[in-house]
Amino acid sequence: MIDLRSDTVTKPDERMREAARTAEVGDDVYGEDPTVSELEARAADAVGTEAALFVPTGTMGNQIAARVHTEPGREILAERESHVVKYELGGFAQHSSAQVRMLDGGERGIPTPAQVEDAIVEESLHRPGTGLLCLENTHNAKGGVAIAPDEIAAVADVARERDVPVHLDGARVFNAAVALDVPVTDLTEPVDSVMFCLSKGLGAPVGSMLAGSEGFVGAARRVRKLFGGGMRQAGVIAAPGRRALENVDDLERDHENARRLAAGLADVDGFDVREPETNILRVDVAGTGLEPAAVLDRLRERGVLASEMGATAIRFCTHRDVTDAEIERALEEIDAAMAG
Amino acid sequence: MIDLRSDTVTKPDERMREAARTAEVGDDVYGEDPTVSELEARAADAVGTEAALFVPTGTMGNQIAARVHTEPGREILAERESHVVKYELGGFAQHSSAQVRMLDGGERGIPTPAQVEDAIVEESLHRPGTGLLCLENTHNAKGGVAIAPDEIAAVADVARERDVPVHLDGARVFNAAVALDVPVTDLTEPVDSVMFCLSKGLGAPVGSMLAGSEGFVGAARRVRKLFGGGMRQAGVIAAPGRRALENVDDLERDHENARRLAAGLADVDGFDVREPETNILRVDVAGTGLEPAAVLDRLRERGVLASEMGATAIRFCTHRDVTDAEIERALEEIDAAMAG
Amino acid sequence: MIDLRSDTVTKPDERMREAARTAEVGDDVYGEDPTVSELEARAADAVGTEAALFVPTGTMGNQIAARVHTEPGREILAERESHVVKYELGGFAQHSSAQVRMLDGGERGIPTPAQVEDAIVEESLHRPGTGLLCLENTHNAKGGVAIAPDEIAAVADVARERDVPVHLDGARVFNAAVALDVPVTDLTEPVDSVMFCLSKGLGAPVGSMLAGSEGFVGAARRVRKLFGGGMRQAGVIAAPGRRALENVDDLERDHENARRLAAGLADVDGFDVREPETNILRVDVAGTGLEPAAVLDRLRERGVLASEMGATAIRFCTHRDVTDAEIERALEEIDAAMAG
Amino acid sequence: MIDLRSDTVTKPDERMREAARTAEVGDDVYGEDPTVSELEARAADAVGTEAALFVPTGTMGNQIAARVHTEPGREILAERESHVVKYELGGFAQHSSAQVRMLDGGERGIPTPAQVEDAIVEESLHRPGTGLLCLENTHNAKGGVAIAPDEIAAVADVARERDVPVHLDGARVFNAAVALDVPVTDLTEPVDSVMFCLSKGLGAPVGSMLAGSEGFVGAARRVRKLFGGGMRQAGVIAAPGRRALENVDDLERDHENARRLAAGLADVDGFDVREPETNILRVDVAGTGLEPAAVLDRLRERGVLASEMGATAIRFCTHRDVTDAEIERALEEIDAAMAG
Repeated sequence: MIDLRSDTVTKPDERMREAARTAEVGDDVYGEDPTVSELEARAADAVGTEAALFVPTGTMGNQIAARVHTEPGREILAERESHVVKYELGGFAQHSSAQVRMLDGGERGIPTPAQVEDAIVEESLHRPGTGLLCLENTHNAKGGVAIAPDEIAAVADVARERDVPVHLDGARVFNAAVALDVPVTDLTEPVDSVMFCLSKGLGAPVGSMLAGSEGFVGAARRVRKLFGGGMRQAGVIAAPGRRALENVDDLERDHENARRLAAGLADVDGFDVREPETNILRVDVAGTGLEPAAVLDRLRERGVLASEMGATAIRFCTHRDVTDAEIERALEEIDAAMAG
Repeated sequence: MIDLRSDTVTKPDERMREAARTAEVGDDVYGEDPTVSELEARAADAVGTEAALFVPTGTMGNQIAARVHTEPGREILAERESHVVKYELGGFAQHSSAQVRMLDGGERGIPTPAQVEDAIVEESLHRPGTGLLCLENTHNAKGGVAIAPDEIAAVADVARERDVPVHLDGARVFNAAVALDVPVTDLTEPVDSVMFCLSKGLGAPVGSMLAGSEGFVGAARRVRKLFGGGMRQAGVIAAPGRRALENVDDLERDHENARRLAAGLADVDGFDVREPETNILRVDVAGTGLEPAAVLDRLRERGVLASEMGATAIRFCTHRDVTDAEIERALEEIDAAMAG
Repeated sequence: MIDLRSDTVTKPDERMREAARTAEVGDDVYGEDPTVSELEARAADAVGTEAALFVPTGTMGNQIAARVHTEPGREILAERESHVVKYELGGFAQHSSAQVRMLDGGERGIPTPAQVEDAIVEESLHRPGTGLLCLENTHNAKGGVAIAPDEIAAVADVARERDVPVHLDGARVFNAAVALDVPVTDLTEPVDSVMFCLSKGLGAPVGSMLAGSEGFVGAARRVRKLFGGGMRQAGVIAAPGRRALENVDDLERDHENARRLAAGLADVDGFDVREPETNILRVDVAGTGLEPAAVLDRLRERGVLASEMGATAIRFCTHRDVTDAEIERALEEIDAAMAG
Repeated sequence: MIDLRSDTVTKPDERMREAARTAEVGDDVYGEDPTVSELEARAADAVGTEAALFVPTGTMGNQIAARVHTEPGREILAERESHVVKYELGGFAQHSSAQVRMLDGGERGIPTPAQVEDAIVEESLHRPGTGLLCLENTHNAKGGVAIAPDEIAAVADVARERDVPVHLDGARVFNAAVALDVPVTDLTEPVDSVMFCLSKGLGAPVGSMLAGSEGFVGAARRVRKLFGGGMRQAGVIAAPGRRALENVDDLERDHENARRLAAGLADVDGFDVREPETNILRVDVAGTGLEPAAVLDRLRERGVLASEMGATAIRFCTHRDVTDAEIERALEEIDAAMAG
């Protein structure tokens, strides 16, 4: 099977496994796991913040961020198709008692500065004040769109001028940086906190990082405990995570593979292929006369896995566990599947 | 002062005051206040439901409805400019741990059946299932728009076919019925629960009704206690409320006055007047070159009170405490104010 | 029927009804109801605070207080039989996300300073910090126990020295003051906020007051809106409430009647009567060999209503709507009922 | 350093590390990690339930259990010194909107059947109904007390007869089983769900199991996602966890060491040693005239780490990373420290 459903399926490589085996560990709830501490320091360094916190998942990272930045009854601004809104079980309402005001980020999933300006409300007797702006980069549901530094800065600045902090769901922010050929810090500098995943394209088995100021991370550590995310000898997973941080440059190959896939799929009858910006490729299959699920079934029969994306499209996600040769083979199999 | 800020400013008339004075009362927490019970029965009758509950405010009625219809982690669909979303302090997140998915109801504040269909999600490992559709009639922020029975039914049916209950914020649903010249039950029949206010155009000093099935109202009674809305000798306010129910036909006069006001204001330089459907009149004042607040100040100096409505408009709201003669006088004063 | 179930059953007298009829009113959400404003000023004066807020019920007052004093994840200390813990539907958890640490206040329902000292915890990585101490006076479930100023002050001081604010559920705090023959301010001075009911022994049909500093009441006003407690022409009920404030001295008569009742019931076979401190009389009926419910049935058949109080006792509550003569008659009927 | 602070400090041994290195993994959010699935099956088997779920921490396991068993506004019964009440940041209020009714479990931390019977309340207009009974075995804060099967069953039966489900915080339930020399299923059979930790005495680096019926675990899986506990290639930590399950019999050695420690410390001046039932040893140090913190400092200077336990006691916790020889050495060093 060539698994192009998601980059979450990447498995730890030998170096990561060896790192897990040999990790120096301690009780991280007591702050005594040197491998976790080192990972946190390196992660903070990577995204240019004072501090960072190791969390079991990206969802926890985003939810902790909202909880720390806001108090009950504040409103959170987020793009309507963003992960925090669509795929985290409505957590902002549940964990932070915060109403989400959903902004339409258009084709690329990034609201305009004017939209943000309009959406911010001052707290009043009747209205919840805006407590957080949440951005996403790359934007998953829009197809791995890489938002440029000036786009991020433009909306973030509007919020921060109004004393509204900004959190970046940067689950794949390194994909964005590589695609845009900018230092990732150009993407994280305009925001107050950032979450990024070790366990997606970077290949770690488990874990994400939540980064921000010392004060923010201190508060986040306590909320992590509340959420049940305070693990003990977490060095065992932090060690592969630290290796994952070294895989950033490899993401370029995934992006090339996505483009190669896009070029090849453009010839398939009824496929409307969107040019990928990173490692996510969106293909509208309405032209085939088939439901996405039916297309996926055909592909699966030929050994290729992809996933649904909305009502008429499917998604291919390239990653480090798919070789160049497998991309070629996938193209052949998809051709055959759709010709059949 | 001619107070056209809102129909919430209506004061109880002599009949209502006398009703308060003479009300037969009991302890309504024990279910022993006959006046409250009678009001509840009449209110249920009026909107065609099995039962109804007296609540201190419309906000409490709407929030109780959401709490009863949903469980934590469900999503609520509501129009993005609706009262429950804009003016109730993000209560759905706070009281019901529910995320609101905001739908754009366009000029008239009513989402299309297709929008509702698209927005409904089945509960999954990642997604909060849709737990409630919330509609508003008349739509306040859009300017007292009266949504017709078939419009309500069309969207409500889509939801109910998917097992999503529908709540109607009918704070001014009698205005809608009068304006559309239909029985109010035509507007409430397609939904599972409805809240309407006694204290707006109907003139009661305090109170709203939350109506629905026996089961719904039973559950609502308990949630009302949780919210601190279980009052004792509430007959004192239920009695004027019962009188208010008799004022429905008078709303037509308020609508006429709104139209008269609209006709008169159309001549004011820089006023872009929207034809009122009920008792709310929206006037865009961008053409005057003044901020809404500045326009309101000028009006106030001449003895006319109105309120802001978004970035460039002001709102006039007619009601039973403004006489026809006062409308004439208001027009003169506004003319003078804006000519100044 | 002689209704001794609760002082909540008191009905407004003619003066109160007339006050409702003639009240000068306005829209209190806009802060324009002069009767409400006057009541709030007088209430603040009465309990010696900077400000006060009119709320529809005591439950709402207590719940707002907790919400304002704490943030999510703090712990609230409260006596295990107190109203906030037993009869408010677990509201502290629901409205304030606060865990209650229940203290055993013994026979009189007042924890000792040492208990409070021991129970206060500093916030840590593992522990919710203590965010509020909640006291009750008179203590309802313990049988209307009047807690003396020095008892209140002793525990409150312990909390406040540790920066833990103190809220007093003073639903019947005027009963305590009258019984102890002290100014009510002696009972409210040691705490940060106090709620008291107009609708119990003082006789108002609806309403309670939440009093504290300007800042506290300002925040409380906003939370009241969130809870759906922001009423419009609330002067209609505030006016009788203002009259109720003049009824404080009459409470002494209720206490006398409770003592008279106690004296008379002491002779009933199987009744173990606790000497009442205020207007609540607890009688253990285990000695009759009957369940409390069975005793209540017998009484009801003879025209006397009382209520259950735990597993083996019943409660009589005297109030302004029960005359001295009715107390005499109640004694006769109870005698007859239990002799039967 | 001889670290006797907690059994959470245990580090993975070579077999566990090798298991982490060689684990067959997949994306567990998709249900495709065979190592996690195997661990879940074995864990369910071990405690005799239909199913089990791998969670990052015991806290998350307990909090998920409460969330699944209850709905907002229910009351949870728990011992007042239990972990869920003291050390999980008041999570029941925050995650489940549930009020905790704290029961005093006495010296051994187990409430009596009568206490549970008395504490259960039926839902009413005023009262939150009891939604869960939460027990703990071994009871940590009471000093590793092993609750016997009949004690568990007696209280659990009372609850279940009243339709109140029972959750067991069995973080160290295998210690209890070993100490009592009973199959662990004797301890888990009377309850509806059980959480136990792999990362304490069993030695795994990370992870706990939440076990119960198929339906319970299915619901728990979704709540785990909400809490941010749905990890990807979790086999890397599940593999050592599976090894940890084989370490149950070794716990007997820890208990012996605790007894050896107790015997030795009994001779220290001012130490009041409680006979340990499992691997936790409580020593009251009031007799030394020193604060616990001061005693701990002295011990630390001699290379022995222990922890505070309440106002006058310290706690020693034996575990698989402390050898018999180290116990001997610890005794010598403590002797010397306290003699000094």
